[in-house]
Amino acid sequence: MANASTYPVVALMTDFGTGEGDIGVMKGVIAGITPNAHIIDITHDIPPQRIASGAWVLASGYRYFPAGTVFVCVVDPGVGSSRGAIALHAGDWFFVGPDNGLFSYILAEQPAHAAVLLSNPAYHLRHISSTFHGRDIFSPVGAHLAREGAALMPDLGASIDPATLIRLESTQPARRDSKIDAHIIHIDNFGNLITSIPLTMLPDLFDLRQVQATLPERGSVIDERRRFFADGPEDDRPFIYGDSSGYVGIAVRNGNAARTLGASYGDAITFVIG
Amino acid sequence: MANASTYPVVALMTDFGTGEGDIGVMKGVIAGITPNAHIIDITHDIPPQRIASGAWVLASGYRYFPAGTVFVCVVDPGVGSSRGAIALHAGDWFFVGPDNGLFSYILAEQPAHAAVLLSNPAYHLRHISSTFHGRDIFSPVGAHLAREGAALMPDLGASIDPATLIRLESTQPARRDSKIDAHIIHIDNFGNLITSIPLTMLPDLFDLRQVQATLPERGSVIDERRRFFADGPEDDRPFIYGDSSGYVGIAVRNGNAARTLGASYGDAITFVIG
Amino acid sequence: MANASTYPVVALMTDFGTGEGDIGVMKGVIAGITPNAHIIDITHDIPPQRIASGAWVLASGYRYFPAGTVFVCVVDPGVGSSRGAIALHAGDWFFVGPDNGLFSYILAEQPAHAAVLLSNPAYHLRHISSTFHGRDIFSPVGAHLAREGAALMPDLGASIDPATLIRLESTQPARRDSKIDAHIIHIDNFGNLITSIPLTMLPDLFDLRQVQATLPERGSVIDERRRFFADGPEDDRPFIYGDSSGYVGIAVRNGNAARTLGASYGDAITFVIG
Repeated sequence: MANASTYPVVALMTDFGTGEGDIGVMKGVIAGITPNAHIIDITHDIPPQRIASGAWVLASGYRYFPAGTVFVCVVDPGVGSSRGAIALHAGDWFFVGPDNGLFSYILAEQPAHAAVLLSNPAYHLRHISSTFHGRDIFSPVGAHLAREGAALMPDLGASIDPATLIRLESTQPARRDSKIDAHIIHIDNFGNLITSIPLTMLPDLFDLRQVQATLPERGSVIDERRRFFADGPEDDRPFIYGDSSGYVGIAVRNGNAARTLGASYGDAITFVIG
Repeated sequence: MANASTYPVVALMTDFGTGEGDIGVMKGVIAGITPNAHIIDITHDIPPQRIASGAWVLASGYRYFPAGTVFVCVVDPGVGSSRGAIALHAGDWFFVGPDNGLFSYILAEQPAHAAVLLSNPAYHLRHISSTFHGRDIFSPVGAHLAREGAALMPDLGASIDPATLIRLESTQPARRDSKIDAHIIHIDNFGNLITSIPLTMLPDLFDLRQVQATLPERGSVIDERRRFFADGPEDDRPFIYGDSSGYVGIAVRNGNAARTLGASYGDAITFVIG
Repeated sequence: MANASTYPVVALMTDFGTGEGDIGVMKGVIAGITPNAHIIDITHDIPPQRIASGAWVLASGYRYFPAGTVFVCVVDPGVGSSRGAIALHAGDWFFVGPDNGLFSYILAEQPAHAAVLLSNPAYHLRHISSTFHGRDIFSPVGAHLAREGAALMPDLGASIDPATLIRLESTQPARRDSKIDAHIIHIDNFGNLITSIPLTMLPDLFDLRQVQATLPERGSVIDERRRFFADGPEDDRPFIYGDSSGYVGIAVRNGNAARTLGASYGDAITFVIG
């Protein structure tokens, strides 16, 4: 259960890069509020303003953090506009950031206990800039939340129904009987294609009689499955595997599946299982 | 007030990059001396040896760190020469590094309580390399200072008059009546021009009848002011705004002011207010 | 001595880069097991799969970390194959990672007290992926070891003789009388050549009558020695110096020794001393 902790963890994910001092300043704010916070960087190299990439990187990692961890996530092209700033308590964790789809996978995968709009300025810095809510709103809220836990949620602002939070369409595979319509949600450093299908949706991936993936925009069909990269076909044929991130992936042994298939981020991919 | 703390914070800023192990080694040294130190990276990507950039990044962030934070700052083209190595107690914070102008803004903005030359080897590593004072002198001094606070200052070495510390000229805007001569001290990732004029010098920026900025080397005049990026002129005209760093900036809505104006780092910029 | 600590330090070194969330996830795992761990990044930018570079970066820094520090090191081209996964207790420190030569310098420089194969799954995550042992095996083992210290070693798996661990040949200079056969094991950002000869092998480097270095593949002879970069010959002649990493180096004053000499990573270099 997520509770106030003697070892509060605040995990940061942004698209700010580390070339300027922004991330350091956010950590300074957090350390000022919750001096014993353990601050962990997920990454600050989300491609600028690409919400879906941020959503995926968060999704691939959050389960590995201790219960009670507060994730402060800032990929926020709408900063300064009317987009909501929220805190979400889902599963054993807390998530603070803009309401723009960044928490799509969390909402799909975890029970949402509570969500609030960050409307109470008592938990923000005194002076709010129009462009750096990561420093002025999300970091101080995250620091308070890491220290106080779930009991603080109602104080942070107006309660909202988690069902109304924005979710990215591309992150929600649609299953009808034996057919799953999904998307390529990530291409990793090795060119492996990560799909939006969580392994929990196909727990029997390697026991099924047949699994066939189709990239309709590319005219490609993949029907090999492999448990290990080293077992992949030697002749460059792509195969389906379970990625270490927890999602179904497509790889080429000693090769680059994205290049072999001409596949891009965001492409539709359809699975037929039997 | 800056005092010995149960949660000492050491913030690091260098131009070392993170590609080799130098930063990790500095943290190892700090953790060996002050095991409960909370070590925070500001950035390690200051452009190599560009003191003025380091000075600015530090200036834009230090206020957000808890009182007592020790900033260990190493942008040090003169390492191994006779440049001084110093510790400075100014405002609620401590600053450790070379005496080369890196602390110009701090000295301009905060009362300097004390400064010392780091002449006491008892607080350095036993073996001092000629090239890596970040590891051998600044990190151990910073770690001791984070633990002991202001009382340690006299032990670190010979006291010096803070007024004699080196200040970069470009960081000190000169105001005569309605005219302020300043410089472009930073160009951010979005091409916004940050000037050396702190917002505290123009607290009434948006209430003044007129504010006109001139880039004499470019022949450009900017006389629009905007509180928010989203309010900027739609036609690419640059405008004056208050940057989240705490300094007056020049931006172009959805554009790149540096490119539009042909402005470069270090350019003179003059403000006339009325 | 390395013991269980109230301030356990886990230092991480990988070739994963920081662009995705992998490092954050490893830290999440560590914080979940040992909440008071102080996690320090050495670097995550080891050139991909270049074991010898990882070995060198670790070698240049480990001595500066507190006794008891656990180094979790992942440069692991053989992940998923039959290469061993090990923990090593050597000198005052612990080292966790693949048995592929990454700990060559440690084994050469420190007494090895114990080594074990990480064969006990009780200290791993429950589900082991085939590709991310950094998260699933090395991080949890490192976290437990940081908390429990040397007493935990036997529990981690089957004991092995440290003498059987893999060592990179290039890291072990061969000395016969006045001749030392060594290699260029690193080229730093400034183009300085770092050799595999620890300064402890030549403690009298500057007292010897003559020291002559030869790069046989390049036909170059270097016989100048300098204590400081600033003392180097003004005419671009390379000189021998003691690098701050603890190894003998070759530099050119205000220049790039690698370029001047046409030297590359891995080149043989022979020293004759007299």
